[in-house]
Amino acid sequence: MSGGARELTVDLGERSYPIYIGTGLLAELGRKFTDRGFSVKSPVMLVTDSAVEGLYASKAEESLRASGYTVTRAVVPSGEASKSLERLDVLVEEALKAGLDRKSVVIALGGGVVGDLAGFLAASFMRGVKFVQIPTTILAHDSSVGGKVAVNHRLAKNIIGAFHQPEFVLYDLDTLASLPLREVRAGLSEVVKHGLIWEEAFVDWCEENAEQLLSLAPDALGYALYEGCKVKSIVVSRDEKENDLRAILNLGHTIGHALEAVAGYGELLHGEAIAIGMVGSARLAARFGYSPDIAERTERIFRKFGLPVRIPDSCATENVMSAMLHDKKFTEGKMVFVVPTAIGSVEIRSDVSSEWVKEIVDGLREGKS
Amino acid sequence: MSGGARELTVDLGERSYPIYIGTGLLAELGRKFTDRGFSVKSPVMLVTDSAVEGLYASKAEESLRASGYTVTRAVVPSGEASKSLERLDVLVEEALKAGLDRKSVVIALGGGVVGDLAGFLAASFMRGVKFVQIPTTILAHDSSVGGKVAVNHRLAKNIIGAFHQPEFVLYDLDTLASLPLREVRAGLSEVVKHGLIWEEAFVDWCEENAEQLLSLAPDALGYALYEGCKVKSIVVSRDEKENDLRAILNLGHTIGHALEAVAGYGELLHGEAIAIGMVGSARLAARFGYSPDIAERTERIFRKFGLPVRIPDSCATENVMSAMLHDKKFTEGKMVFVVPTAIGSVEIRSDVSSEWVKEIVDGLREGKS
Repeated sequence: MSGGARELTVDLGERSYPIYIGTGLLAELGRKFTDRGFSVKSPVMLVTDSAVEGLYASKAEESLRASGYTVTRAVVPSGEASKSLERLDVLVEEALKAGLDRKSVVIALGGGVVGDLAGFLAASFMRGVKFVQIPTTILAHDSSVGGKVAVNHRLAKNIIGAFHQPEFVLYDLDTLASLPLREVRAGLSEVVKHGLIWEEAFVDWCEENAEQLLSLAPDALGYALYEGCKVKSIVVSRDEKENDLRAILNLGHTIGHALEAVAGYGELLHGEAIAIGMVGSARLAARFGYSPDIAERTERIFRKFGLPVRIPDSCATENVMSAMLHDKKFTEGKMVFVVPTAIGSVEIRSDVSSEWVKEIVDGLREGKS
Repeated sequence: MSGGARELTVDLGERSYPIYIGTGLLAELGRKFTDRGFSVKSPVMLVTDSAVEGLYASKAEESLRASGYTVTRAVVPSGEASKSLERLDVLVEEALKAGLDRKSVVIALGGGVVGDLAGFLAASFMRGVKFVQIPTTILAHDSSVGGKVAVNHRLAKNIIGAFHQPEFVLYDLDTLASLPLREVRAGLSEVVKHGLIWEEAFVDWCEENAEQLLSLAPDALGYALYEGCKVKSIVVSRDEKENDLRAILNLGHTIGHALEAVAGYGELLHGEAIAIGMVGSARLAARFGYSPDIAERTERIFRKFGLPVRIPDSCATENVMSAMLHDKKFTEGKMVFVVPTAIGSVEIRSDVSSEWVKEIVDGLREGKS
């Protein structure tokens, strides 16, 4: 029996796909391939990283082989540095040597880095082959919806990529058991974000079930990932190519990305940086006349999840401001922010004064209320 | 007045785009940008190669600047070696330094290599920006329809790429005047191919107007490019992602690609290799019981255009056969060929005996009839 088993469809017309969430799903991978009619004559490539390989790669491959598929494993070093054109080149070589053809499937088994890299391989190899995602982090619930795949350039993150939707996403909750607590907290930050931009009731539920979520209770976790994916899915369905609405997903990301860059990538986890950023955005809301309760509530929730809500001293205000001005979300010199108007709804403001932002960044220091 | 001015629409639903064919069009580039509402606030990147740059880059840029656009020029070395991930990396760096954003346009000014490389840059930079093609060879009429863009891997040609349709194609016949005669002949080989697969009347016309075409008379050349693009456009419209029908465009390519690979890339021009390949396919047709007149007629036409119709001695039969067996158009060991059933129509046969192919390759030697 699969604990917390749920299925969600990301609605994108002919590119629609299901997300399966539950326990024990890895063993069903081969059957899912068969159900979808994937050819056993075309080799499958499983892309994973050095941290995840030893934990789950064999299980995934055994399931595929039991259903008659030939699988080649490609292992990349764990970490952001693998999202490069050089690594793509190596993977293409491995794909060619394994005899992948146009009907082959590329599987990403891992977190966001593996998903982005293997996804771009799938998008560009032979001008596009099938793609399946098996996320092994909570954070990856976010990148598993929407089809954004990419590699980095040394001058810019995610700058070379594509929109390439997967055939399906398999979220086996068992694979989350190996996550360090700090990454659990950081992953839940994006889950809560999806509540904050779209649905107050889900924010309430997250707050009430914080302990269950932090202990990875399958039922609670399955529900939270389902709801998080659902919100993202609704937004992406209405704006697949990121023309307008999709920007609301960036709540907390303007300050968050700047903090990540200034602290040095990896020092502050993405989920931690955006938690601080969301508190900042909520304080900005008060400047626009919305209730100050939004900021208090936002801060309380993230504290409950053990996430940081203050900017570390290592990030000087002037450096944070400078990093924001180089962010690609700024158009023509004005600062654009996603600002909450209540818990569960946001608006996009392009009239944000940099003075206000500076004051808020200054105010988010340790020791300040 | 534009000599031989014509306009054709490649019909791909919301990705449809026009091809403008005529003389003096380069000077109208800026106006075309304005007409389509491209933002003057977003920098334009003109990608060209070291052979074409000195001839036409300034003219294109002047037209854009006169319409208020900011243009950055990126020059790549002339030749197939530029279709690489390494070169893509350099172009991404140039694009970032020039401040390209999501509303920017990437222009390919050149032949097939520049079109494929700049096209893949446009497809992947920031997950896709606008793309405009300005072909400066006859051969590029073929690659300007259908949106296939790619770079090479050292183990395989065109293996990393995308389908990315241009906003429009500007075919200025004046830019063809600088082509060496050998490239004119080779480019016309693909034009005739489009007649051979689809429309006997156009084949008749090409044969009657061979001298006009070889001397680059604008009216004849404009009509030939229009008809060639039209045939390809009809085929691509019905099969954008190359699932079935699009394969008929490979007439002559099975033997042709093998000859290119065996002779060494660049020794035999693509158009020359496929001319020989088309004669081979026509001889194969006779084996299937179709009229031997098809092969005679095919050979006569290519001779009239001064194209080779025999395999050079440098290409040993066993090497040609071996190269064909490694071609990605072979599925499960059987040989697949596009075979003419008459002048102007073809069929795809997957039941081709390799013995027959070997005899035909052997028979296509200098000195043999």
